[in-house]
Amino acid sequence: MTEKNKENHLVARIERAFGAAREKALRLALGDDGALWIARPRREMVLTCDWFLEGTHFLRDKHPADAVGWKCLARAVSDIAAMGGEPRCFLLSLALPKKLTGKWLDGFLRGLRRASKALRCELAGGDTTRRDEVLISVTVIGEVRRGGAILRSGAGPGDTIFVSGTLGEADLGLQQLRQMRGMGRPMNAALRKHLYPEPRLALGQWLAKRKLVTAMMDLSDGLSSDLPRLCRTSGVGARIEVDSLPVKKLRGSKDALTLALHGGDDYELLFTVKPRNAARLPDNFHGLRLTRIGEVTRERKIVVRTDTGKTETLRSGGWDPFQAA
Amino acid sequence: MTEKNKENHLVARIERAFGAAREKALRLALGDDGALWIARPRREMVLTCDWFLEGTHFLRDKHPADAVGWKCLARAVSDIAAMGGEPRCFLLSLALPKKLTGKWLDGFLRGLRRASKALRCELAGGDTTRRDEVLISVTVIGEVRRGGAILRSGAGPGDTIFVSGTLGEADLGLQQLRQMRGMGRPMNAALRKHLYPEPRLALGQWLAKRKLVTAMMDLSDGLSSDLPRLCRTSGVGARIEVDSLPVKKLRGSKDALTLALHGGDDYELLFTVKPRNAARLPDNFHGLRLTRIGEVTRERKIVVRTDTGKTETLRSGGWDPFQAA
Repeated sequence: MTEKNKENHLVARIERAFGAAREKALRLALGDDGALWIARPRREMVLTCDWFLEGTHFLRDKHPADAVGWKCLARAVSDIAAMGGEPRCFLLSLALPKKLTGKWLDGFLRGLRRASKALRCELAGGDTTRRDEVLISVTVIGEVRRGGAILRSGAGPGDTIFVSGTLGEADLGLQQLRQMRGMGRPMNAALRKHLYPEPRLALGQWLAKRKLVTAMMDLSDGLSSDLPRLCRTSGVGARIEVDSLPVKKLRGSKDALTLALHGGDDYELLFTVKPRNAARLPDNFHGLRLTRIGEVTRERKIVVRTDTGKTETLRSGGWDPFQAA
Repeated sequence: MTEKNKENHLVARIERAFGAAREKALRLALGDDGALWIARPRREMVLTCDWFLEGTHFLRDKHPADAVGWKCLARAVSDIAAMGGEPRCFLLSLALPKKLTGKWLDGFLRGLRRASKALRCELAGGDTTRRDEVLISVTVIGEVRRGGAILRSGAGPGDTIFVSGTLGEADLGLQQLRQMRGMGRPMNAALRKHLYPEPRLALGQWLAKRKLVTAMMDLSDGLSSDLPRLCRTSGVGARIEVDSLPVKKLRGSKDALTLALHGGDDYELLFTVKPRNAARLPDNFHGLRLTRIGEVTRERKIVVRTDTGKTETLRSGGWDPFQAA
């Protein structure tokens, strides 16, 4: 290896961290022009990609390197969960400052490998380059039974709207992280949920298999930004009951309701269920709470009914990189 | 659409530019959590991703927006060509400054759509965000007959080394572009090759189908950087005959030989052929020149034999983002 072959060196580091492909379906993952992958019969593939950029999606001085590694994969895999799919492999586009190719890269790869194992999603390949900021784009290839994917478009008037877990916790974790001195460590549930989100794969697959849901998506930008997307795609509206939102009793700066409506990064599942099936859903799925939060409406508006019984239009207040500054 | 829904707006712009998926294999490309894709039977998938970053891979004030659109896809598709595969669909991660979401984005999408049609590679989905510089990562999904992909690892001692087309022309184009005032327009072949490279898909597929080659890759970083990668993967070395390099008579700043050995961005194919098959290769493939440039050696060194008959070690001088400044 010559001095000028640092890119090869970086690829070699990544290869060593991940080792040979464990799955027979995946061949010659790294080190060739492309990876080779054999899809299973009677499945279709789910393809999704996600940015994870320093300064936009994480802060280098706040987010530990291993959390950056974990989260860049976990949030992309969450899109697979949202369709009821199973992640299979991923491609990593990574741009790094030269001075981060040592200890920081080690931490990053440790978190990424841990996510890769936990989510059963193998590294298939990638591209590396040098840059003064950390730039990451992750593409995940998943699989779902042919015709079995849950789309955003199937919600109908009268369907009951559910969410998994609690809302707003990850955003509270981000607020705590910003207020901390130095690097965040997951000392509580909110910080942990922000730094190491867990895509709801088992729930998504179970809901898809039971054919219980009419539409589904994951909550990445916040309920008030994501619910309108599901409704627009389905050509419907929604009424949310504020009282019913699964809000944790939060000690934090913003009030819990604002966090639940607008907080991003929860990676919970938002899904709609026909009324006759709603009763068949358990209150929790292996310990993960499932909560009815409202109803799909014919009128194409998103409204919230407050605790006083008043109905207000819900404005998108979640995370949007193009929002007016 | 509220003021805060600019990201949705951007996605809608991209959707409109590309229209509905033309291929039956591809469902609900944009606007859901992921795209759905059905692989064809008896094929395996080829997966590859490529960065295309402002300042690193292109210059916003020099590269026309439509060339950025064309090239970000063409260079990723070149990796599919290098394995003898056929591109099928791609995912686009795009980060943009707000002020480029007008005319610049139009030009970019025009070039991207033109490449998408020419290369028969459909937009399957993507992710958009806001950033002060243009950041692009493209993932391409291709297909190849199962077991039929040409890898980098199959070169054996005695094999003849070939390249397609000419070498160094795109780098000359880049030099000319840097010297021009304002935006580059493709007024000559070198500029055109730099701005609108054409992945050698037909040649790659033909070579793979005829089972004529033992190893293959595309030349993206320059012969002196890429040939060592092929040789390392195959566990061999190479001897290049300088006299035989397909160098265009170039009027430019650097001498033509330096450009041919070290110039990047040519996206020609580099491949090795058993001696008994070398004679079966035509001099050109549908007008694209095929040139013998040397031989694979047992000794794991890359050497060049100069016109005086002297043999020198070839040092990697091609493009490497991590090279010492």
